[in-house]
Amino acid sequence: MVATPTKINYDIKDINLAGVGKQRIEWAAREMPVLAQITERFRQEKPFAGIRLVACCHVTTETANLAIALQAGGADAILIASNPLSTQDDVAACLVKDYGIPVFAIKGEDNATYHRHVQTALDHKPNIIIDDGSDVVATLVKERQHQLADLIGTTEETTTGIVRLEAMFKDGVLTFPAMNVNDAETKHFFDNRYGTGQSTLDGIIRATNVLLAGKNLVVAGYGWCGKGVAMRGRGLGANVIVTEINPVKAIEAAMDGFRVMPMAEAATIGDVFVTVTGNKHIIREEHFAVMKDGAMVCNSGHFDIEIDLEALKTLSTEIKEVRNFTQQYILKNGKSVIVIGEGRLVNLAAAEGHPSAVMDMSFANQALACEYLVKNKETLQPGIHSIPTEVDQEIAALKLQGMGINIDSLTPEQIEYMNSWTVGT
Amino acid sequence: MVATPTKINYDIKDINLAGVGKQRIEWAAREMPVLAQITERFRQEKPFAGIRLVACCHVTTETANLAIALQAGGADAILIASNPLSTQDDVAACLVKDYGIPVFAIKGEDNATYHRHVQTALDHKPNIIIDDGSDVVATLVKERQHQLADLIGTTEETTTGIVRLEAMFKDGVLTFPAMNVNDAETKHFFDNRYGTGQSTLDGIIRATNVLLAGKNLVVAGYGWCGKGVAMRGRGLGANVIVTEINPVKAIEAAMDGFRVMPMAEAATIGDVFVTVTGNKHIIREEHFAVMKDGAMVCNSGHFDIEIDLEALKTLSTEIKEVRNFTQQYILKNGKSVIVIGEGRLVNLAAAEGHPSAVMDMSFANQALACEYLVKNKETLQPGIHSIPTEVDQEIAALKLQGMGINIDSLTPEQIEYMNSWTVGT
Amino acid sequence: MVATPTKINYDIKDINLAGVGKQRIEWAAREMPVLAQITERFRQEKPFAGIRLVACCHVTTETANLAIALQAGGADAILIASNPLSTQDDVAACLVKDYGIPVFAIKGEDNATYHRHVQTALDHKPNIIIDDGSDVVATLVKERQHQLADLIGTTEETTTGIVRLEAMFKDGVLTFPAMNVNDAETKHFFDNRYGTGQSTLDGIIRATNVLLAGKNLVVAGYGWCGKGVAMRGRGLGANVIVTEINPVKAIEAAMDGFRVMPMAEAATIGDVFVTVTGNKHIIREEHFAVMKDGAMVCNSGHFDIEIDLEALKTLSTEIKEVRNFTQQYILKNGKSVIVIGEGRLVNLAAAEGHPSAVMDMSFANQALACEYLVKNKETLQPGIHSIPTEVDQEIAALKLQGMGINIDSLTPEQIEYMNSWTVGT
Amino acid sequence: MVATPTKINYDIKDINLAGVGKQRIEWAAREMPVLAQITERFRQEKPFAGIRLVACCHVTTETANLAIALQAGGADAILIASNPLSTQDDVAACLVKDYGIPVFAIKGEDNATYHRHVQTALDHKPNIIIDDGSDVVATLVKERQHQLADLIGTTEETTTGIVRLEAMFKDGVLTFPAMNVNDAETKHFFDNRYGTGQSTLDGIIRATNVLLAGKNLVVAGYGWCGKGVAMRGRGLGANVIVTEINPVKAIEAAMDGFRVMPMAEAATIGDVFVTVTGNKHIIREEHFAVMKDGAMVCNSGHFDIEIDLEALKTLSTEIKEVRNFTQQYILKNGKSVIVIGEGRLVNLAAAEGHPSAVMDMSFANQALACEYLVKNKETLQPGIHSIPTEVDQEIAALKLQGMGINIDSLTPEQIEYMNSWTVGT
Repeated sequence: MVATPTKINYDIKDINLAGVGKQRIEWAAREMPVLAQITERFRQEKPFAGIRLVACCHVTTETANLAIALQAGGADAILIASNPLSTQDDVAACLVKDYGIPVFAIKGEDNATYHRHVQTALDHKPNIIIDDGSDVVATLVKERQHQLADLIGTTEETTTGIVRLEAMFKDGVLTFPAMNVNDAETKHFFDNRYGTGQSTLDGIIRATNVLLAGKNLVVAGYGWCGKGVAMRGRGLGANVIVTEINPVKAIEAAMDGFRVMPMAEAATIGDVFVTVTGNKHIIREEHFAVMKDGAMVCNSGHFDIEIDLEALKTLSTEIKEVRNFTQQYILKNGKSVIVIGEGRLVNLAAAEGHPSAVMDMSFANQALACEYLVKNKETLQPGIHSIPTEVDQEIAALKLQGMGINIDSLTPEQIEYMNSWTVGT
Repeated sequence: MVATPTKINYDIKDINLAGVGKQRIEWAAREMPVLAQITERFRQEKPFAGIRLVACCHVTTETANLAIALQAGGADAILIASNPLSTQDDVAACLVKDYGIPVFAIKGEDNATYHRHVQTALDHKPNIIIDDGSDVVATLVKERQHQLADLIGTTEETTTGIVRLEAMFKDGVLTFPAMNVNDAETKHFFDNRYGTGQSTLDGIIRATNVLLAGKNLVVAGYGWCGKGVAMRGRGLGANVIVTEINPVKAIEAAMDGFRVMPMAEAATIGDVFVTVTGNKHIIREEHFAVMKDGAMVCNSGHFDIEIDLEALKTLSTEIKEVRNFTQQYILKNGKSVIVIGEGRLVNLAAAEGHPSAVMDMSFANQALACEYLVKNKETLQPGIHSIPTEVDQEIAALKLQGMGINIDSLTPEQIEYMNSWTVGT
Repeated sequence: MVATPTKINYDIKDINLAGVGKQRIEWAAREMPVLAQITERFRQEKPFAGIRLVACCHVTTETANLAIALQAGGADAILIASNPLSTQDDVAACLVKDYGIPVFAIKGEDNATYHRHVQTALDHKPNIIIDDGSDVVATLVKERQHQLADLIGTTEETTTGIVRLEAMFKDGVLTFPAMNVNDAETKHFFDNRYGTGQSTLDGIIRATNVLLAGKNLVVAGYGWCGKGVAMRGRGLGANVIVTEINPVKAIEAAMDGFRVMPMAEAATIGDVFVTVTGNKHIIREEHFAVMKDGAMVCNSGHFDIEIDLEALKTLSTEIKEVRNFTQQYILKNGKSVIVIGEGRLVNLAAAEGHPSAVMDMSFANQALACEYLVKNKETLQPGIHSIPTEVDQEIAALKLQGMGINIDSLTPEQIEYMNSWTVGT
Repeated sequence: MVATPTKINYDIKDINLAGVGKQRIEWAAREMPVLAQITERFRQEKPFAGIRLVACCHVTTETANLAIALQAGGADAILIASNPLSTQDDVAACLVKDYGIPVFAIKGEDNATYHRHVQTALDHKPNIIIDDGSDVVATLVKERQHQLADLIGTTEETTTGIVRLEAMFKDGVLTFPAMNVNDAETKHFFDNRYGTGQSTLDGIIRATNVLLAGKNLVVAGYGWCGKGVAMRGRGLGANVIVTEINPVKAIEAAMDGFRVMPMAEAATIGDVFVTVTGNKHIIREEHFAVMKDGAMVCNSGHFDIEIDLEALKTLSTEIKEVRNFTQQYILKNGKSVIVIGEGRLVNLAAAEGHPSAVMDMSFANQALACEYLVKNKETLQPGIHSIPTEVDQEIAALKLQGMGINIDSLTPEQIEYMNSWTVGT
C-alpha cells in the first residue's frame, strides 16, 4: 500500500497507534469475506476512478475495510466520524499511515470539532457521500447548495438517516438520488438485529459488568434493532419489557413473550433501560423521577437524543464517574441513575460496535450502492432508491458461501409450479 | 337467530352435531374480541345488504364467527370447505341449524365432493368471494367467465393463494380487484407465525404423542410460517434444521441459531419433517430413500403437494394406519416412513387449526376487506390490493385493548421531530 | 402371547377396544428401546418367577409396555389405575385380551371404584408393589398389617409418593424397603422435566385450543416439573410467572428470566395457571376471588388437591361444561374461572400423559428396581433406597444408543488425573 | 479504615492504582447486598478475632468485598492470587493502600512467582484457608505437615478443588475439616451457571469481538458451568454442540435441544470451543489437527490444563498476538487456531470474572463457612462437609430481599399436609 501520510491532511489522535490499528483491521477482515471479494473485483475494475468520495461513518475496523475497498476501486476518498464517541483512534492512525487515506476523527471530540470535520468533508467537494445519520447530507443541503452540482448521489444506512431523508423529500429539498442501504434485507435484517442485539448488551456489560440474569431490561422500540436487543437480553436471562408506540409491533412483542407497557409504568420497575427508537426524549424527566435507585440507562439509537440528559441534569445534585463510560447522577430525591456512554450509541461508546460478520454485509451493500450510483448516474432520478433485489441476493449468497452453508435451489418443476395458477386442490 | 335449516340447501355430515358445535363456536368467540366489535358494528350498519358472498374457508369455530359477522352485516353468504380434511363437522351443523347459513363441507370428503362444492359455491353467483388458496377464484376464471360481471372482488389470506393470484395477474386474467389479506401485518405476522407455529406442533403431538425434546426437526421454508414452526419447535426442545432456497432467509435462519442445509442432507438426519414452503415436491423420492427408519413427515403449507406421496407409495410395499391421522409406509428398503394427516395441513387435519386469538385478527381483516371492496367498488382497479395501513393499525389497537395492554403514544415534540430533518448530532 | 381373558378377573370399560389399544401400545414401543432390551433379557432370565406383583399406575400405552416386561420376566402381575381420570380404556382392554394381564381400571371411575380396585390389588397378596403416589402402600400399612410379611418391597416414582413414604418412615411404619425411583437421574431429570413440560401444555392446548403466545402463564412450583412447564411455556411464547415457597428455587426462576411473585399477586394477572407443587390448596378461595374473567386453572401435580375446587364451588352460581374436560365456573362476582381436567393431572386427563420416549427411562428404572428388590431381598433394610448409580448410568447409555448419539469416554490420562490431587497450577 | 501499607508486606503491581480500584470495589458492592449485611454483623460480633486467615482467590472487586468482610470480622487475613492471569492490579492496590490488607498478586505473574506467593501464604501460619482450586491446601499437605496443627479447617468453592479434596480424602491425607462451598445451592446453581455463563461469553466477545449468531459453539462438559455457557451461547444465537463423558448429562443436553457428539467430530465443525470440564487435555493434538481454519479455543474451567497447548505448539510454526489476550497459532497444515487467554479462565483473563450479583451469594457462603468452622472447631470431624441447609436458605432469602422479590410461605394446613401420609386420592 502507498503510505504518504505526510502529504495528506488528517486530524486524528495519535499516528503512533497505527500498529495496533493494523492488527485489528486485519483481524476484522477475517470475518468479512464478502467485502473481500468485492474489494478484489474493485481493484481490477476501478469503478471509482476519478470520483471524490466522502464517507461519514463510525471509524471502526470494519469501516476501515470499507475504506480500503473504495480506495482499491480508485476513489479519492476521505473519512470522517459520524459520532463524537465512536472513533477507534488506532484505526484512524492506520488508515492515515498505512493507506494514505485522510481521516478526520478523534474519539471524544467535542461538537465543534465534529462539525468542523463535516465542513472539511464538504470541502472535499464530494461526488458521492456515504452518510450515517444524514448529518453531512443535511449540512450540504442547508449550507452548500452550490455544491449539489458535483453530487452524483448519496447512500444512507441508518433508520434515523432514512427518516431524515424522507422528511427532506417531503420538503422538496432532496434533489439527488439517495440509496437506501438500510432497507436492503442483507443490511437491516442482520446488522440492526444481530449486530445491534449482541453489541448493545456487550456495551452494557463492558461498561458495568452487571449480571443481566434476573434483571428487568426495558427496551424502548421494537423495530429490528429493538427486536435484536430484546432477543439477546432474554438470551442472557433478563426479564424483558418492551415499550412501543406502534400497536402492531406491540402485539408482536407480546406474542414473543415480552411484557409490553407504557414507559411511565416501565420506568418504575426497570433495572436497565435501552432506547432504540430513532425518536427523541423517549426517557425524560417524568420517567427519571420514578426510577428505582441505581437504574441504568443507555441508548443504542443513532443520535444521543433518545435520553433527555438535560432533564436528568436538572434533577441531579451531582454527577460522578463510576467506571469508564459510566456516570452516576445523584438525584435530589436521594436516588441515583446510572448513565452509560453519555446517552450515545452504547455499543460504540463502551464496546466495539457491530461485529465484523454483520458489517461485512452492510458494507458490501454500501460499496455496491456507490458503484450503482456511478453506473446509473445518467438515469437515476432524485429521491430515495432501494438496493436492487439482485444485489441483496448476491450478497447473501456470497455470505452463505463464506459461512460454509449450502442450500437448496428450485427444481424446474418447482419453478414451473410457482409461475402457474391452474393447479389447486 | 333465525333457524330455518329445512328451507336452505346444505351438505354436511350430521345436523345433530349442532349442539357441540355451538358450544365450541361460543368458546372460540371468547378469544375474538376484535371480530366481536366489528360484528356489532356490522349489525347496525348492514354493509353487505343485498350482497351475495361465498366464503371458502377451513370450517372451524373461528370461521363460524366470521360467517356470523358477515351474516350480521346483511350478507347472503354460503360457506364451503377450503380443504377436504379441515372441516369440523359440528361447526358446520351449528351454522346450518342455529344460524341458517348454507354450508357445504364434510370432514374427509373426497376430491370429487370437494370440487362439486366449489361448483355449488359458484352457482350462488357471488359478488364477493373470500378465498383460501384461490381454488374458487381459479375455477371461476377458468370455467365461468360469464359470471365475472357479478363479481365485485375477492379476498385471499394465504401465501399460496397470493402466489396464484400474481401468476393470474401476469397472465392477464385477473380482471377484478383482489384484497391481499395475507400481507396485512395483523395477519401474516401473527396468524402465519404464532398460529401456524403452535398449531403445527400441536397437530404433530396429537397425532403421534412424540416427545419433541431431543428430536431433529426439519423445517422446510423459513418464511413467516416456517419461522413460527422453527421457533416453537425449539421452544419444545427440538433441534431444528432449516432448508431454504432463498439465501437471505437462509442466513437469517443460521443467525437465529438453526442449522441450515439442503434437504438431501437433512433427509438423512431428521426425525420429524414439516414443509411450509407454498411450493411442490419439497420432500420427494430421493429424500424418502435416505430417511432414518421411523422418520415422520407432515405438511403445514396450504396444499397437499409439498410432500410427494405418490413417490412414497411407489417406494412402499404396505401402508398401515397406526394412529388417527397417522400412516406408516413400509418401504422396500425395510425402513418405515410415518405420514401425518395425509400430507394435508397438519394443524387442521390432526388438531384444530389456528387458535382463535390469532384468527381474530386475520378474520377481522377478512371482514373489513369485504367491506372495503363494497365501499370502493366504483373505484378499485383490477389487480392485487393491500389492506390499508389504517385498517391494520386499527385492528392492532383493538386487539391490544382486548389483551389489556396499554402502549405509549407520540408526544407533540416527537411528532415534530419525526417530520424534521434539520436536527442532527 | 397367551390370551385367556375369560379365565382372569378384570374390571375395564370395554374389551372390544383391544384392537385400537394394541395398535397404540405398539406405537409407544417404537420410542422405548431401553425397556425393550430389558424385556428381552427378562424373557430369558425370568427374574420374577413365582413373584406376585401389583402395579398401580396410570394405565397408558407406556405402562402397558412395562406390564409386558414384568410378565415376560415371569411375574404374576395385576394392574390397577393410580388415578380415576388417567386410564386409557383401549389399553386396559388389550392387556386383558391379548396378554391375559388382569386390569382394574376405568377412565372416569368414581372414588368408590378406585378404592375398591386398591383393595382388589391388595387381595392379590403382592410380594412387590409398584406404586404411584403411594395409595396402595398407605392402604396396606393402614389396613393390612398382616400382609406385610408377604412384601419384599415397593417402588415409588412420584415426588408426592416419596414425601408420603418419608412421612411414614418418620412415623416408624415403613417396615420394608422402598426403592426411590423418582430420584434416579434418568427418571426425574427427564420424566418430570421434559415429560411433564411438554404433556402439561399439550393437555391445556387439547382441552382449550388456547394460543399461549402472549398469555400470562402462572406456574406454581419450580421443582423439576415446574421447571419443565415454565421452560416449555416460554417456548410456546407465554410470559411465565413462577410462584415458590423455597427461596433458592425462587432466585433460580428469577435468573432464568421469569417473574417471581406470591400467588396472591399472580392471581390478579394470570391467564392460565398450572400447579405442580405436590402440596395442597395452592390456588384457593382468596385467589379465585381476584382472578381475571376467563382465567384458566389446571393441575399437573400427582393429586387433585392443589386447586381447592370446593372453595371455587362455594364462590360459584353455576358450572357449565364448555369443552371436553373443561368446565366454566360462573362466579357470584360475575366473572368466570375455567377448570381443566377437574383439577386432576391435566396431561393425563386431557392429553396422553408423558411421551413414550421419557417413560422409556422411567419404566426401565421401575423394572430394574423390582429386579433389584428381588435379588437383594435378604439384605435390604427397611427404609427408602436410591437406585444404584450404575443402573442409572446403564439406562442412560442404552438410551443414548437408542437415540443414535455417541459420546466421549475418559482417556487413561484423564482417569488418572481425576484420581490425583497433587497436580495444580 | 486503617491504612498503614508501609508497615505491611505485599507484592503487587503498582500501589498508585488504588484510586481506580476503590471506585470499582464500591461499584461491585452495589450488587452485593447479602455480603454487606454479613459484613455489618461481623463488624459487631468479631467472629474471627485472633484468627489468622489465608484467602487464595481471584483478586477481583468481589473478592475485595469478601476480604473487607473478613477483616471487619476481626481476621488477620492475607490474600494471594489463585490464578496468574486473574488479578486486577487496581483492586490489589486498593486493598493494600486503603484497607491495609497484605496482598500478593500481580496480573501476569509467572509460575515461579505464583508458587512463591503460595509459600508466603503458608508462612502466615493460617488457622483458616479459603482456597480456590486447592493449591494452597495441597501444598500445605505435601510440604508443611507440621503446620496442620494450626489449621482449624478450609473452605473450597470450585468443582476442581472438591475433586482434589476427595482424592486427598481417599488417600487418607485430609486430616482436617473442609467446607464444600461449591455444593451450596446458592453457590453452584448461580455462580457456576449464570456467572460462568455470562462471563465466559463476555470474555470471548471482549477478546475477539466475534459475532456469535450463526457460529457453531462447542461446549465441552455439561455440568453447571457447561449448562450456563450452553444456555447463554444459544441466547446469543450460537448453534451449540455439547461434548460429554457422562451419559445422563449427555441426554440432558440433547433434550435441551443441543447437538451432542464426541469431540473428535465436534472438532471438525466448531467455530468457537469452550472447555468447562475440570479434567485435562479435553482438546488435544488429534482435535487441533482437524479444526477449521480460524477456529477459536478457550477454557472456562479452573485450571489451564483442559486445552493441551503444548501439543498445539508442536503442531505450529508460529504464534502471533492478534488482539489483547488472543493468539493465533499458525499450523504446519496451513490453517490457524486462535487461542484466547492462553487457555486460562477466559472470563477472568479477558473479562472481569463473574458479575458481583452472583459472587454476592458465593462469597456470603465463604464468609459464613469460615464462621461455621470457627464456631464448630471442637466438634467438626476431618473430611468434606456441606454448608448447612439453613445457611443456604438464609442466603437465598437475603438475596431475594435484595432483588425486591417476595414469595409465598407455607400455610399451616400445607405444613400439616407435607408431614402426613394418610391423605391420598
